[in-house]
Amino acid sequence: MTAIEEIGAKAKQAALALGTVSAEAKNAALKAMADALLARTEVILAGNEDDRKAGRDSGMTAALMDRLTLTESRVAEMAEGLREVAALPDPVGEVVAGWRIPNGLQINKVRVPLGVVGIIYEARPNVTVDAAGLCVKSGNAVILRGSSNAINSNRVLTQIIAKASEDAGLPEGSIQLIPFTDREAAKELMRLRKYVDVLIPRGGAGLIQTVVEQSTVAVIETGLGNCHTFVDASADLEMALAIAINAKCQRPGVCNAMETLLVHRDVAQEFVPKVCRALAEQGVEVRGDATVRELFPTAKEATEEDWYEEFLDLILAMKVVGSVQEAIDHINTYGSKHSEAIITRDYDAQRIFMMSVDSADVYVNASTRFTDGNQFGLGAEIGISTQKLHARGPMSLRELTTTKFMIYGSGQIRG
Amino acid sequence: MTAIEEIGAKAKQAALALGTVSAEAKNAALKAMADALLARTEVILAGNEDDRKAGRDSGMTAALMDRLTLTESRVAEMAEGLREVAALPDPVGEVVAGWRIPNGLQINKVRVPLGVVGIIYEARPNVTVDAAGLCVKSGNAVILRGSSNAINSNRVLTQIIAKASEDAGLPEGSIQLIPFTDREAAKELMRLRKYVDVLIPRGGAGLIQTVVEQSTVAVIETGLGNCHTFVDASADLEMALAIAINAKCQRPGVCNAMETLLVHRDVAQEFVPKVCRALAEQGVEVRGDATVRELFPTAKEATEEDWYEEFLDLILAMKVVGSVQEAIDHINTYGSKHSEAIITRDYDAQRIFMMSVDSADVYVNASTRFTDGNQFGLGAEIGISTQKLHARGPMSLRELTTTKFMIYGSGQIRG
Repeated sequence: MTAIEEIGAKAKQAALALGTVSAEAKNAALKAMADALLARTEVILAGNEDDRKAGRDSGMTAALMDRLTLTESRVAEMAEGLREVAALPDPVGEVVAGWRIPNGLQINKVRVPLGVVGIIYEARPNVTVDAAGLCVKSGNAVILRGSSNAINSNRVLTQIIAKASEDAGLPEGSIQLIPFTDREAAKELMRLRKYVDVLIPRGGAGLIQTVVEQSTVAVIETGLGNCHTFVDASADLEMALAIAINAKCQRPGVCNAMETLLVHRDVAQEFVPKVCRALAEQGVEVRGDATVRELFPTAKEATEEDWYEEFLDLILAMKVVGSVQEAIDHINTYGSKHSEAIITRDYDAQRIFMMSVDSADVYVNASTRFTDGNQFGLGAEIGISTQKLHARGPMSLRELTTTKFMIYGSGQIRG
Repeated sequence: MTAIEEIGAKAKQAALALGTVSAEAKNAALKAMADALLARTEVILAGNEDDRKAGRDSGMTAALMDRLTLTESRVAEMAEGLREVAALPDPVGEVVAGWRIPNGLQINKVRVPLGVVGIIYEARPNVTVDAAGLCVKSGNAVILRGSSNAINSNRVLTQIIAKASEDAGLPEGSIQLIPFTDREAAKELMRLRKYVDVLIPRGGAGLIQTVVEQSTVAVIETGLGNCHTFVDASADLEMALAIAINAKCQRPGVCNAMETLLVHRDVAQEFVPKVCRALAEQGVEVRGDATVRELFPTAKEATEEDWYEEFLDLILAMKVVGSVQEAIDHINTYGSKHSEAIITRDYDAQRIFMMSVDSADVYVNASTRFTDGNQFGLGAEIGISTQKLHARGPMSLRELTTTKFMIYGSGQIRG
């Protein structure tokens, strides 16, 4: 057995036990994990400082450095996050449906944990704690595989929460970190079908692409967000302006921020200069098609690549379209199937948009920034699924489970 | 664009339209497809005869030849199957859940088609019609890729049902067959992420393994059934005997038939010889561990491979175990996560078995042969999922859909 296989086997063993642990016991463990993080904040910050030093020495960008950095208040936030997960209802054991068939067999469809969940993620060390908390609460063992940039932070965090969870009575191996950050280790995890039930990559397009290409374990794709807002001919243009600014600027570095604004030709003359000026005031660089650049000459030229791009920055692609259908076609061609909005007062326009846009979350007259487990009222999320299988949109505890048919008989045989 | 890409693009286009077609229109198309199959039975049988001739020339086994063969009554069964699917409720448009969040946004989780479903399957030509019917009813475009053995049958069947569905008003490209049966064509389909939303392999272990290994499109694994029955110490042995014979012999060639019988040590002395004699009467070859062979000396020796094997034949592996836990461990180690049963009168034994066996369908005191969409009352099935993501157990129309969040606002922006 390789070291990775040993981690997998241990996780599988833990998962079989963890699936039968009561919510009370899991919640007690989550609170113990939170306490342990607070009690050991100094050790965590020291580990994080090692990563930051390595980052400084290797010339890490300021944005990456910010994601990597832990502070006393960020540690407190992680602990608070665990307490919030403890307060959520346990999805395990929910009878999703149940019925009796004519021969008397009682068929119950019952929610059970997935088993072993693998998380492959990039620099943010808080994912270590957030993902572990959600997995444990939903009865899953978790195998964490963070990036080399955050290896010291991740090691310290995992040691603390794994020990706290074991001391609180959860099975050993419920929370494990893969201590190797080379590509081969990740590749081995992606092919560990014998032990791992699902892999969730959390990170940029490159990471997700790699996991999808190389994994034989089932994958849930999350988080890639090339989100669109379409301002229809009938839109309330004041509303459209407020929503466009909010969707682009309120937090540009997240997956539900708008990356492309589509404007109906009939209102372009009035709306494009207005929205471009407002965006410029917020420091947004507009990359437009020919019509946009005519109406707002300081806009740069949008390339074909820009329509596909998730900028995660104060950059916006903008295009004038001739119809709702053209907007829908553009979104279905270039989008990442995350979140899209139409701003309209027209019943038929919103109806065709909602039905035909092939994305996880489609909005009428609201900012795409609401695509978020907490905003939706689902609680903390493990990610936002942009695929169609299993779960679509914000994924919380329930989406970390599967179901099982439990069938109760009294000697039935098939005739 | 390659020929396969063209099929994919056409399917994607069809899917976007098909997702908005009413149940009435889809049902009318299904009935037209059924009528067309009946009207053109002779053409179908002629196409099938070409395949059978090629099969005879290449020395095809009798079992394979039987699966390949179409008759007038089998064509009528396919037509009847389409009518049954037409009679099932349309899953599209079901509001799975809906709620309003504090800022007034109405969030509806709505059932929508997956989009484009690819089916890769082996010799049975009836899969062509069954799968197409279920996909169309659930609003999905389907790309069929059958085996070379049945290519003439599949061509004729697809031409007939595709034309009938188009004549009835469904979008062109809703039902397509890949006319190439080489490996490269299948491989290309498995990587057609741009157009195909999910791939469902239907066939033996080799086919499923290949698709899982090579596909970058999301896969639903179906149908591999190494099913177990465990006769507990407290079992009603008359009931256990009847269930064991039914699970093994009633139809040995299907995925929910029993392949391994586990017997508790405390009842082995009485039960093993009895069940072995009854099985022998049915022509079943028993392959046992040392204890089984002591108790029934005509049993052959079971190899390590036999515990993993899906025999699909009158062969049964048999083992004596010391406890419920040993039975659970055996099943979780060697099983295929399909269907397992415990025969017991003990409350705790069934409770731990039901919770700890990691399979799609777990039974107390009934034959595993009930794992079937029709038996469960779900209607015709596209397969039985043995994976945990998306759907687990019998998959019918609802399992061929995903959901989408439709969010209705009045100008909400995020603060």
